[in-house]
Amino acid sequence: MRAVVLVSGGMDSLVTAAKARRSGRDLVFLHVIYGQRTAAREQRAFDDIADFYRPRRRLVADIAYLRTIGGSALTDPAAPVPQEGALSPGGASAAADAAGIPATYVPFRNAHLLSIAASLAEVEAAGEIWIGASEVDYSGYPDCRRIFFDAFERVIDAGTRPDTSISVVTPLMDMSKGRIVREGLRLGAPFELSWSCYVESEEACGRCESCRLRLAGFADAKVRDPIAYSQRAGS
Amino acid sequence: MRAVVLVSGGMDSLVTAAKARRSGRDLVFLHVIYGQRTAAREQRAFDDIADFYRPRRRLVADIAYLRTIGGSALTDPAAPVPQEGALSPGGASAAADAAGIPATYVPFRNAHLLSIAASLAEVEAAGEIWIGASEVDYSGYPDCRRIFFDAFERVIDAGTRPDTSISVVTPLMDMSKGRIVREGLRLGAPFELSWSCYVESEEACGRCESCRLRLAGFADAKVRDPIAYSQRAGS
Repeated sequence: MRAVVLVSGGMDSLVTAAKARRSGRDLVFLHVIYGQRTAAREQRAFDDIADFYRPRRRLVADIAYLRTIGGSALTDPAAPVPQEGALSPGGASAAADAAGIPATYVPFRNAHLLSIAASLAEVEAAGEIWIGASEVDYSGYPDCRRIFFDAFERVIDAGTRPDTSISVVTPLMDMSKGRIVREGLRLGAPFELSWSCYVESEEACGRCESCRLRLAGFADAKVRDPIAYSQRAGS
Repeated sequence: MRAVVLVSGGMDSLVTAAKARRSGRDLVFLHVIYGQRTAAREQRAFDDIADFYRPRRRLVADIAYLRTIGGSALTDPAAPVPQEGALSPGGASAAADAAGIPATYVPFRNAHLLSIAASLAEVEAAGEIWIGASEVDYSGYPDCRRIFFDAFERVIDAGTRPDTSISVVTPLMDMSKGRIVREGLRLGAPFELSWSCYVESEEACGRCESCRLRLAGFADAKVRDPIAYSQRAGS
């Protein structure tokens, strides 16, 4: 089975790639740049992870227009990325609006990622799209929920050739960050090549939501995160 | 009601824009470049149509990666755009594969267009996306059918903020090309600003599928198409 794997360069997509490889999938890697602050660093992580897993094809797609559309602290240079503040048990930070949506939500971003993945999958005759979304730690993002991916499978079915059949596989959906770290260690995933920080590109800040969720996952797994931090939350 | 209107620059999107304006919508225009052969000419048509209707905001999004993904005669310089050949009553040309999919099908293209429109609509607090798809003349494209747009509405609902509600409006869905021309004339749509040819950018070729469907529509409406052709099919 051929599979398109969405590889952002973060820890979750790394473990997703490791699981797809372990499952014997014929890999196609897709990385999407959407004008986020740390795009160059994330692309380096993607390149390093692709060099490690050697997929049959790798594609980098640039959707910089998302930055023009705006509406997110992740792509808007004028809006601060929240740091510090309490993490709720579900992972949604205090820097969320009344509906519980984090300031780093990029409107409908995952639909863009899945649309690109579906076009690529149709052309490459891949039957699966793998994406490392998790409802456990990112429950604040509406487009990270399984209900969204289920609806997207139906859109792919309606909008592609009659003989095209593509499933959206979300192997981390019910995993906590701690379990994702343990799963990656079990599969020999090269965590040192991944990058999660939303703010910095040399040493991870250790303070943004993404860093804190990652560090909490490593703490839960009782392993030290191999990447460099300028500050480790709680230490 | 604010509405994002997808304006390719072709005749169908022009009439869609005319209908949205006539319906009193507060307009946001979106044009998407996807590496198609006549992109520059289509963007000029978009600019001209936007200057005519003066939307509150206009956005041009470039998804050139679709050309890299390939799989279509519309974006692949090595694959010829079909010209001549019989048009079936439904409009699908003889240059279609066994499943009836035209060679100009761009895999899952409309999902990309709708994803961009939905992100823009969410940020602009628009409640509608208007798109000039028609099942009558383009029944060969799976992502031009109402069943696809219905499924996409559900994806938007699942993947955006809880308070976001966006409908996908397809006012031309059941219209033949002849009826679209008559509707445009009734609304005073400036057909001379639009561009439909898939092949040429100075004078329309008159021979590609898109030109022939357009000319058949004007013939059906018993009106002469105001744009210049190097050759008019049937004349």
